Amino acid sequence: MARVAFQGEPGAFSEAAAIAYFGRGAITVPNDSFDGVFRRVERGDCSHGIVPIENSLAGSIHQNYDLLLTHHLSIVGEATHRVIHCLLSLPGTNLKDVRQVLSHPQGLAQCERFLSRLRGVKRVPSYDTAGSAKMVRDQGIHDGAAIASERAGKLYGLQILKRGIEDDRQNFTRFLVLSRAAVHPKGNAKTSIVFALKNVPGALFRSLSVFALRDIDLAKIESRPLKGKPWEYFFYLDFLGSLQEERCRKAIDHLREIASYLKILGSYPRAKA
Amino acid sequence: MARVAFQGEPGAFSEAAAIAYFGRGAITVPNDSFDGVFRRVERGDCSHGIVPIENSLAGSIHQNYDLLLTHHLSIVGEATHRVIHCLLSLPGTNLKDVRQVLSHPQGLAQCERFLSRLRGVKRVPSYDTAGSAKMVRDQGIHDGAAIASERAGKLYGLQILKRGIEDDRQNFTRFLVLSRAAVHPKGNAKTSIVFALKNVPGALFRSLSVFALRDIDLAKIESRPLKGKPWEYFFYLDFLGSLQEERCRKAIDHLREIASYLKILGSYPRAKA
Repeated sequence: MARVAFQGEPGAFSEAAAIAYFGRGAITVPNDSFDGVFRRVERGDCSHGIVPIENSLAGSIHQNYDLLLTHHLSIVGEATHRVIHCLLSLPGTNLKDVRQVLSHPQGLAQCERFLSRLRGVKRVPSYDTAGSAKMVRDQGIHDGAAIASERAGKLYGLQILKRGIEDDRQNFTRFLVLSRAAVHPKGNAKTSIVFALKNVPGALFRSLSVFALRDIDLAKIESRPLKGKPWEYFFYLDFLGSLQEERCRKAIDHLREIASYLKILGSYPRAKA
Repeated sequence: MARVAFQGEPGAFSEAAAIAYFGRGAITVPNDSFDGVFRRVERGDCSHGIVPIENSLAGSIHQNYDLLLTHHLSIVGEATHRVIHCLLSLPGTNLKDVRQVLSHPQGLAQCERFLSRLRGVKRVPSYDTAGSAKMVRDQGIHDGAAIASERAGKLYGLQILKRGIEDDRQNFTRFLVLSRAAVHPKGNAKTSIVFALKNVPGALFRSLSVFALRDIDLAKIESRPLKGKPWEYFFYLDFLGSLQEERCRKAIDHLREIASYLKILGSYPRAKA
């Protein structure tokens, strides 16, 4: 049975994504930090980890890109999860009583339009969405509410003051599923790599040409700083295809001629759009 | 005389960068938010704004990329600034008395190795590095210290317990200087643009080809989510050259054939490396 590490308190969106991916039989294991998720899977304490990599409004979770580089795990799957934020309070608190709203800064930012209509409400940034629901319960905050998932509300005995308060319904988070052993998907796969380039003109163009020349579609490119070398970058690339396919392997061989560093993060089945 | 909006409290790194760029005669105007900086310049209350766009360790400040898209200002210059963090306390506090350290989450993260050697110290995230120095003074925190610039220490009457506590000396922040009117540099210039692509295979490769085919070097590429269209992106590109040069203008004309959206953010003199 899958034992899946996630970051956050029980009720976190990552936990919901894990249950949607692995089914209700999965055991989910909370962690304080993303780094903790990676380490727990590395040492075999969990069979899998799940981490958010990208939100359709807020963009990439760059810390997890950095951790993919420094840890030694394979991406074995991806999952997209629709984010529905709820305003949660202790039973008995009414919307007009709410003077402070607790959530992760992203949760607050994603409900900014809703919050701006509540007059004189203080936004209190917290370490976690589900954690903010837990704080409302543990600290007995009667003049406040948390922004978190419906599931977090259930877990911590809070009522839903309002559901679906996010500004934009096109609010999806894409998660990566990690494991120690790579998988080898055949059809409809995606492959993620990270590479660095020699600092010569046209290097990025040439690195993308290895895919374009073989009609391999790119799904995403992300750049992150190369520490110790100001204004040089690691490039994280997702392309459609599996390393089981020869044209993809050839593209990677070709890229090795151009790159000063290259690491395969994994080939894995694509999530349904 | 330049009147320059920056984000943060007096003593912020952005203010130091503004003074280094414009000289000691410049008037610097603090703002609560990056958005506030953009708005203040747009309405003519300041001649210029200065915002951090990228740190050599932490990466891009994505919010400012987003603001470049939604506001109507030109990039007229760039500046790089070496970040030197100091541990600052009220006079009379010794290093061994320090039980809590306040700073912006980035400030705390960039001094993690130093902090981990101070036993049992609580890390208190704050909205601003200079703001954390101000809090130590205003709240009379005798068992704590702030991580901020030397200048912030001077402004708020704090002593330097330790200077240069950042984990990595290759710690530079690159700032953009903004104004309402564009500038037209001739030699040694950089140009920043943002564009979106039609969702067709090879689109990114073709968009970079317009530069490679004309031997125009790229300095940086950054992707940000296109809100309302999950998993589509805006690409922010910096290339070496000025729109005063014909080959750069031709490249942009060529890119317009490929892009579904294109905005010129500005041509400006390059900072010394």
